[in-house]
Amino acid sequence: MTSNDSTASTRPAPQTGTGHILMAHGGGGTLMHRLIEEVFLPKFASSSATDQHDAAVVQANGRRLAFTTDSYVVQPLFFPGGDIGSLAVHGTVNDLAMSGARPMFLSSGFVLEEGFAIEKLTRIVESMASAARETDVRIVTGDTKVVERGKGDGVYINTAGIGLVEHELDIAPKSVRPGDVIIVSGDIGRHGMAIMARREGLEFETIIKSDSSSVAASVQKLLDAGVEVHCLRDLTRGGLASALNEIASAACMQIKLDEQAIPVRNDVQSACEILGFDPLYVACEGRFVSFVPATDVEQALRILSAVAGAPNAEIIGTVFDAAGPAVTMTTRIGSTRIVDMLSGEQLPRIC
Amino acid sequence: MTSNDSTASTRPAPQTGTGHILMAHGGGGTLMHRLIEEVFLPKFASSSATDQHDAAVVQANGRRLAFTTDSYVVQPLFFPGGDIGSLAVHGTVNDLAMSGARPMFLSSGFVLEEGFAIEKLTRIVESMASAARETDVRIVTGDTKVVERGKGDGVYINTAGIGLVEHELDIAPKSVRPGDVIIVSGDIGRHGMAIMARREGLEFETIIKSDSSSVAASVQKLLDAGVEVHCLRDLTRGGLASALNEIASAACMQIKLDEQAIPVRNDVQSACEILGFDPLYVACEGRFVSFVPATDVEQALRILSAVAGAPNAEIIGTVFDAAGPAVTMTTRIGSTRIVDMLSGEQLPRIC
Repeated sequence: MTSNDSTASTRPAPQTGTGHILMAHGGGGTLMHRLIEEVFLPKFASSSATDQHDAAVVQANGRRLAFTTDSYVVQPLFFPGGDIGSLAVHGTVNDLAMSGARPMFLSSGFVLEEGFAIEKLTRIVESMASAARETDVRIVTGDTKVVERGKGDGVYINTAGIGLVEHELDIAPKSVRPGDVIIVSGDIGRHGMAIMARREGLEFETIIKSDSSSVAASVQKLLDAGVEVHCLRDLTRGGLASALNEIASAACMQIKLDEQAIPVRNDVQSACEILGFDPLYVACEGRFVSFVPATDVEQALRILSAVAGAPNAEIIGTVFDAAGPAVTMTTRIGSTRIVDMLSGEQLPRIC
Repeated sequence: MTSNDSTASTRPAPQTGTGHILMAHGGGGTLMHRLIEEVFLPKFASSSATDQHDAAVVQANGRRLAFTTDSYVVQPLFFPGGDIGSLAVHGTVNDLAMSGARPMFLSSGFVLEEGFAIEKLTRIVESMASAARETDVRIVTGDTKVVERGKGDGVYINTAGIGLVEHELDIAPKSVRPGDVIIVSGDIGRHGMAIMARREGLEFETIIKSDSSSVAASVQKLLDAGVEVHCLRDLTRGGLASALNEIASAACMQIKLDEQAIPVRNDVQSACEILGFDPLYVACEGRFVSFVPATDVEQALRILSAVAGAPNAEIIGTVFDAAGPAVTMTTRIGSTRIVDMLSGEQLPRIC
């Protein structure tokens, strides 16, 4: 199973804890990865299972297709900057884009709870349709199931997606090379903090809006310009830290980050401090990292900065062929910090 | 949206009821179809939306692909003849097969409830893997989410599927012609009754086992033999009656059935009588109807009867170009009965 679940760990498989599912099994940290490693991968393993990427790239009729799925269980259903519907489009489109695929078709599967207001469902469906139109992808097939009151939580949405892989690159952790430069496409942590601030009823001077958006156009521009993209990863559950740890481990490389270069908005930073979160681990839903050779960095940065609405893409780190912790960071005060995987959950049900 | 949800109705859209989701909105009857018509189709409408079929057939790189999705919320999770895992493979593979597509790839999205036993999850995953192997389809991508205790019901699974359309036929209701003969691939009503008997704690002399299975090989054999297949439909939610009503309405034709020819096992018939169900409306998960021209019937019947494990395929009806009710049936006692759509639910959460 090539999977947004798949882990980059090379450690021997540890035990999956208590024998029962914990909230942390959905959190994007090591507990989730262990569940995937121990329960899913041994059974679903396919030839592409070792690719460990957001979407599976498969051969169909001699062409390369990207295929991915995500279920969305975000709470609250409506949040500043989006809702479960737009998120379900952006998240899956972005998974396809992370293979460098051109997103083409989406499916939508709804699990509705008895008693859910049809007015809310209609708003969510409109939001999905609008997000799909904006990102030029078609929702072509769907399914609806209903469960009894108390057996769901309003609505859960699954979107699966198909994209066309039209380039010749192998965009994956295994293509990462020493000297590769890491660019983040914009400021991090907004989606998670928009959700948490709403959940906790926090009020700031400005309302933090989710960054939920499609990054497919940005990726397409990099590819169209001939940038030699080695790896791409969107920064969802587990945030920047988890994404980089997964890639570093899968590539058997070390990543060194520069904290000062990592863009975090002041309101997001404040919300993180109040709620006790580290922005490095907070999910985005419209940000990604690109691994590109040093020769292509300037061009990539110029392209990403020119994308309409894309705020401050930045060079945040470099890849080394070295032993030691997978990801380290030079902090603002000049010390070095290990940036590890989360063990469990940080933010339950943020996507 | 081409959809297993899509309705064949040509009536003006009625109101969606109480303004809140009812269990019946998931039942496969007219209430579900109204929800789809009023909420989903106007927003997701695509060029293929009028095809109203189990899977969408899309063009990708100049080739035809079938794409479909289904969420599975069956209760109990384990039942005689299968479990939610094997069902999630068979159901989606069968939706692909109903376009005459060769099923190739599946995705799997899990929504797990906090506290769910990992031992049960493992059994379900093994069952999925085994069903996928048997039907020669690969589970290539996946996702796992966790929701709090009381916000789910153990596990919900979504599977989306991709298939290759390698034939030149247009297998859809619009290809149905007067004189077409309808063949059912085996006895009906077993899946629904297996679930209900288990749920109600009924004990019969024999345990009714679900017919849950892949029909892809049967369909492939029909196509390989050159049978001119006009339409295919699997008999899931809403059963034979709903499937035939959808096709008759979409094709603007009338279907006449012969009750005596419709295969129903004695134990299923007894269970239906005890529980007050009509087998015509009870879901199967391994049965389908084929619409073929009279010239090809003998060949089709021979092929379907020769499929390993496929019990008694039968000719059950004929298509007429006539006005009047969409589906009528000559009963065992010689009278004529109108076989209408269900309005709401008959069997909640049978798939």
